[in-house]
Amino acid sequence: VISTNAGGINVLRYGNTRNLVLGLEVVLADGEVWDGLRALRKDNAGYDLKQLFIGAEGTLGIVTRAVLRLVPRPRSSVSVLVAVPDPVTATRLLRRAQGDFSETLTSFELLEAPCVTMTLDHLGGGDTMVPGVSPWYVLIEVSGPADQASCENTVQRFLEAAFPDEVSDARLAISPAQADALWTMRESIPDAHNRAGFSVKHDISVPVSRVAEFLRQADAALHSAYPQVQSFTFGHLGDGNLHYNPLIKLDGHDPIDTRREVNRIVHDIVFSLGGSVSAEHGVGQVRLGDVERYRSAVELRLMRRVKEALDPEYLMNPGKILHEEAS
Amino acid sequence: VISTNAGGINVLRYGNTRNLVLGLEVVLADGEVWDGLRALRKDNAGYDLKQLFIGAEGTLGIVTRAVLRLVPRPRSSVSVLVAVPDPVTATRLLRRAQGDFSETLTSFELLEAPCVTMTLDHLGGGDTMVPGVSPWYVLIEVSGPADQASCENTVQRFLEAAFPDEVSDARLAISPAQADALWTMRESIPDAHNRAGFSVKHDISVPVSRVAEFLRQADAALHSAYPQVQSFTFGHLGDGNLHYNPLIKLDGHDPIDTRREVNRIVHDIVFSLGGSVSAEHGVGQVRLGDVERYRSAVELRLMRRVKEALDPEYLMNPGKILHEEAS
Repeated sequence: VISTNAGGINVLRYGNTRNLVLGLEVVLADGEVWDGLRALRKDNAGYDLKQLFIGAEGTLGIVTRAVLRLVPRPRSSVSVLVAVPDPVTATRLLRRAQGDFSETLTSFELLEAPCVTMTLDHLGGGDTMVPGVSPWYVLIEVSGPADQASCENTVQRFLEAAFPDEVSDARLAISPAQADALWTMRESIPDAHNRAGFSVKHDISVPVSRVAEFLRQADAALHSAYPQVQSFTFGHLGDGNLHYNPLIKLDGHDPIDTRREVNRIVHDIVFSLGGSVSAEHGVGQVRLGDVERYRSAVELRLMRRVKEALDPEYLMNPGKILHEEAS
Repeated sequence: VISTNAGGINVLRYGNTRNLVLGLEVVLADGEVWDGLRALRKDNAGYDLKQLFIGAEGTLGIVTRAVLRLVPRPRSSVSVLVAVPDPVTATRLLRRAQGDFSETLTSFELLEAPCVTMTLDHLGGGDTMVPGVSPWYVLIEVSGPADQASCENTVQRFLEAAFPDEVSDARLAISPAQADALWTMRESIPDAHNRAGFSVKHDISVPVSRVAEFLRQADAALHSAYPQVQSFTFGHLGDGNLHYNPLIKLDGHDPIDTRREVNRIVHDIVFSLGGSVSAEHGVGQVRLGDVERYRSAVELRLMRRVKEALDPEYLMNPGKILHEEAS
């Protein structure tokens, strides 16, 4: 979790894992153990060494212990599945939600219709939770210190104010069981997707204001190259992080070549919009070539300097994030 | 602001500056410019290089541009000055406030009585804002997306529930002008303090749960060494960060020696409680010896490796954070 700076559906409220780490113990490449197990919210006594190891995928050292920041458990929680006409409107709805709920806006997930319908087919049932037929949905959670009735009222008022300009229909979960069912649907999307045929996965981010533009460009480019493509997009609109996972008919084409070609089309667009080719799942081996392609020469040099300062012999998790160079 | 990872009175809600930086442009020691001006909330495509430069006090490069995260302006805000008997009770009140207000708890400042009375004397007036005679006060701000009346009701209920166990008296600002006056008082404390005589300043942090213990130990140790010491403590209890700035009668003693001796007494206690000798103001030159004394050999070596990877000739802001070693 720490070595990948993991994200997920609640980053909007709580931040990435980096935001929750106060202290670390790390085994270094030379075998020494760094004890940085502080429990401080504020510490500016020199370089903040823990930042080096968070998200470094074990390439600078092995995290063996950690001190995490905790937050009070929310007293109330409301989930609602909302029908929206398109990603532009969904982004406008996000801005409204941020104004109304501030930090208590916990999740804001964008779901293309096939993600919802195919997942409910896969799970068997649950269609009653879907607010009408719509090309896009947004799954929202608001949680916080208010009592349950106040929290529900706030969400009701938000939905009324957004209807019909941004919201065409909505189903508010009226029990914890209904809320659980909505989030089970959300969490089962990757599973349903994996059964749906050959697809090419992406874990991209762009500035939130450019998500709709990214989708417009990527969908157009892919339809042009693969007329039978079926888009299948879901993800964390609140963070600008999408799992853009189109289903592609192979028609005898090589899956590895196809994956490479689709990745290239999508990632070139991401790059042109100032985005990242790995928002929350890291580089590993799979995205190594992308890092070399899309990060600048200055950045790659800086990354290598950091790597060689902490692990000059490339002993730690070799072959991840950076190739060992024969220099 | 970025190179010192600045803090202040709203860290409780918004985090340190590090938490608000999305992208940076930095001039490196070799004269190259790193363009890391991304505007992404999530990016795990390799090392998060911006973390290196935030809080590095310019010793690894010069920050020339930045992309910052913005948050919606709160719709409502309530400030209240609360009388509490002691720091233990103030810490209990903080926990209650975190439960009741969650992220909308914006500030939670602990003020020893002399900070309030001397500052109001200095400003001339404002005593009507003080809720009775008390050895300690807490200045709280709650702000968020609710309307002003709801926000005030929430704070009223919080105070009623905390009375009399944690709160002996309270003055809630009933107008923006009264709230401004409370915060002007808070912001004028350093000014009033500077006129009050010789003092030794600290910018320490300990885990929030150990703040009261720190004060007990530090006050006792200083009273033993300097029977005429007058304690003068204020700071960000919500972050465990105190400005522990006792007024000392010099009685002919050398101010530089006295400062060194008091720093040593206080910082040894901070260290024994797992704290930091620089919570929000950085190391600079003044705290350089403290960093060498209190950070472990492994840490100092790691810091030096990072420094030498990015600035092998010690060109950037020399003499800050780390001495240049004749190795």
